[in-house]
Amino acid sequence: MNSPIAAQHLLPATAPRPVSAAFLDALVARFGAQCSQSLAVREQHGRDEGALQAPPPAAVVFAESTQDVADAVKLASEYEVPVIPYGAGSSIEGHLLAVQGGISLDVSRMNRVLSVNAEDLTVTVQPGLSRKQLNEAVRDTGLFFPIDPGADASIGGMTATRASGTNAVRYGTMRENVLALEVVTASGEVIRTGTRAKKSSAGYDLTRLMVGSEGTLGIITEVTVRLYPLPEAVSAAVCSFPSIEAAVRTVIQTIQLGVPIARVELLDANSVRMVNNYSKTTLREEPMLLMEFHGTPASVKEQAETVQDIASEFGGQSFEWASTPEERTRLWTARHNAYFAAVSSVPGCRAISTDTCVPISRLADCLLDSITEADASGIPYFLVGHVGDGNFHFGYLLDPTQPEQAEKAETLNHQLVNRALRLGGTCTGEHGIGLHKMDFLVDETGTGAIDMMRAIKRALDPKNILNPGKIFTL
Amino acid sequence: MNSPIAAQHLLPATAPRPVSAAFLDALVARFGAQCSQSLAVREQHGRDEGALQAPPPAAVVFAESTQDVADAVKLASEYEVPVIPYGAGSSIEGHLLAVQGGISLDVSRMNRVLSVNAEDLTVTVQPGLSRKQLNEAVRDTGLFFPIDPGADASIGGMTATRASGTNAVRYGTMRENVLALEVVTASGEVIRTGTRAKKSSAGYDLTRLMVGSEGTLGIITEVTVRLYPLPEAVSAAVCSFPSIEAAVRTVIQTIQLGVPIARVELLDANSVRMVNNYSKTTLREEPMLLMEFHGTPASVKEQAETVQDIASEFGGQSFEWASTPEERTRLWTARHNAYFAAVSSVPGCRAISTDTCVPISRLADCLLDSITEADASGIPYFLVGHVGDGNFHFGYLLDPTQPEQAEKAETLNHQLVNRALRLGGTCTGEHGIGLHKMDFLVDETGTGAIDMMRAIKRALDPKNILNPGKIFTL
Repeated sequence: MNSPIAAQHLLPATAPRPVSAAFLDALVARFGAQCSQSLAVREQHGRDEGALQAPPPAAVVFAESTQDVADAVKLASEYEVPVIPYGAGSSIEGHLLAVQGGISLDVSRMNRVLSVNAEDLTVTVQPGLSRKQLNEAVRDTGLFFPIDPGADASIGGMTATRASGTNAVRYGTMRENVLALEVVTASGEVIRTGTRAKKSSAGYDLTRLMVGSEGTLGIITEVTVRLYPLPEAVSAAVCSFPSIEAAVRTVIQTIQLGVPIARVELLDANSVRMVNNYSKTTLREEPMLLMEFHGTPASVKEQAETVQDIASEFGGQSFEWASTPEERTRLWTARHNAYFAAVSSVPGCRAISTDTCVPISRLADCLLDSITEADASGIPYFLVGHVGDGNFHFGYLLDPTQPEQAEKAETLNHQLVNRALRLGGTCTGEHGIGLHKMDFLVDETGTGAIDMMRAIKRALDPKNILNPGKIFTL
Repeated sequence: MNSPIAAQHLLPATAPRPVSAAFLDALVARFGAQCSQSLAVREQHGRDEGALQAPPPAAVVFAESTQDVADAVKLASEYEVPVIPYGAGSSIEGHLLAVQGGISLDVSRMNRVLSVNAEDLTVTVQPGLSRKQLNEAVRDTGLFFPIDPGADASIGGMTATRASGTNAVRYGTMRENVLALEVVTASGEVIRTGTRAKKSSAGYDLTRLMVGSEGTLGIITEVTVRLYPLPEAVSAAVCSFPSIEAAVRTVIQTIQLGVPIARVELLDANSVRMVNNYSKTTLREEPMLLMEFHGTPASVKEQAETVQDIASEFGGQSFEWASTPEERTRLWTARHNAYFAAVSSVPGCRAISTDTCVPISRLADCLLDSITEADASGIPYFLVGHVGDGNFHFGYLLDPTQPEQAEKAETLNHQLVNRALRLGGTCTGEHGIGLHKMDFLVDETGTGAIDMMRAIKRALDPKNILNPGKIFTL
């Protein structure tokens, strides 16, 4: 699964800047055992879960405090060396690759919960804490953190990529759920953005500027996010459909009616088959919606009845309920393992995932044409989606011994992105731009907006040391 | 109500830049009758609803298209003349004052609805459209635009100040509800930010950077916002309480329980008395909550019962229901007229409004101490608040013949802001910084964050022509 394929696609243009012995000496002098130059550690930090590859960073610093981050950045600034922040390593668009050399700044040891403010439904954490660790830490308060990108990503990384996932249809994305940040700037200064107040009109929204900036404008050292009361009642259900179109039309109508559904995930028949094999489930191998309803018992019942009515209009069959926590966990674990189920279904394969998102009214159009193209390509694929938001992922399962497949998959992705943009959508709903989607970003926003992003980058990071070479070329 | 008082406070430091005859000639040549240099028009555009005053702009251009805006900005850039965008003129922190001279760019004629996408719950409008005009235009679709700052503000102005209001507790603010923008940059280029997709991780969040930038980073020429299905059932109620503390504790518990209340407004006894006089209502002259519930009939009933239970725990009396649209409109009109009711209660007075917002758990602390101070001051005042968000406004009613009152009121505001900041809040929940709160912004965010804002401003507007002198000093 890790063998390099179609090198011409997977090796982005690299232009490593020199990292002097003097810089590395200064780093070791400051960080001692917190700094590693071992090849294994560097290689582990120089890749992500995506397919792109590049030579590893020159060193890895394990930060244990904001001061550590500030000191590392100050040194990097002095020697003009790139710094790439690293959380859980679960990004997939090449965010972590040292395409211009430099060091990886690993914040995974900064994983403390700093303060829980249960009465205000907020919590402040260090960036290396994972979303599962966060939910474990607040479990006793009756609150939870809903953003769920599948992977057990770090809160800092989720902030930096504006992550979302299965609950976003009801609870929003990191954009809506980050209230305040502590950030180390390119000069190594520590600043704060936002407050714990629920709303504010106080100056430029630096918090939202940092959310989704992929480590290129500052390094996040504290994050304050919203929590939500655990719903009084939760109910999950699966429903099979005669076609993907029928499933999608059910979702569109549900959203248009304003039903506050908490999760609504599409799995195509391929995905269901792979999940059944991998997770030993016995789901009907047809297009399927996996849904969850949150609320009071009465409201959950009402929501579910509404969606059942809509589903049956579109030929949906056998609403199957999972009301116990164990059943629900089994279903959602199976959903979250869909990616691993898929890659294990084709031994030795490597997956490339798309990430388009379109206005809900265009979802059927965008999906159906792309399915036709994917079917015609002959490449094994699976399709899953956070369809309540109009966001879905094709996963193409590439055989490393057939490099032309990578080419074909990139062409399919290109066609898909073009289609999504024509329909008023975006090239990335939740994965970010990284290295992989820089051209798509230009197509999406136009050069005027990219020039504005570049101007901001140059103003905030004049030496171009913060994760350089990502999102856009300078 | 418009007489200048306490001039030392109300005349901000002005440093008008020269506006050459050549520039004005060029403006007239391009815009003809769309350009006015009459004193009355200039004076009307050189003030807002707040108390600050400054000499008027040199001219007013009435833009009728994006091209008009771009051309005006290009001329202003060429001659390095300030440009102040003008929508409905309803801001209150000095946003519209020509403290560095220049021209006012009035976009109120750009008031068309460009496209309604009812299936996606989005609408794209020109910036001069007012929120009431917008709701009128989408009425037939069964959808509505919830953001409601009281005044019939323009959508462009609401975007630029990150406005919110009574519905924000459920539907969010302009931050959450603006999806995409068309913006004219400082060089007169037209760019687009965002798409109609519900979520995206595509590069820097330029949309959110523009939202709340108060005209200092670009001039908004198109806005795409979210709409919501008109709730199947709506129910409004008033409830009186023995004390403000009791009312506030009811709100805190309601929010902490996760009740999706759509509106929950606090009025103190002063406000209720003023409203009764002005709107001929017969509300009990005690601290009062004015609430609204949206949802299905069952869900509205359930929410209301929960809140009634909480209210009665805190001594709330006589939940009075307004279930017909007419009764609801009467109540909310009375609420929205509270400001006018207040200023008309003290003939010839001028109101200064505070705008702090704190985490909900600190709301009672923040409010009660501030009420003690306001009572001790002897200045007539009223208190209203979007308390579900922790946001409230003291309105001090100043007698122009007693200039020391303005001094006292500024001191009270200062104490209130300091208290809010100590409690983790913000100096402005929804009005913006403008000229009036520039010092408070430094107290709130620290110089590091302000320096980052300054760097962004310099990068995007190197000649400092877009609404210069607002939010921070350069």
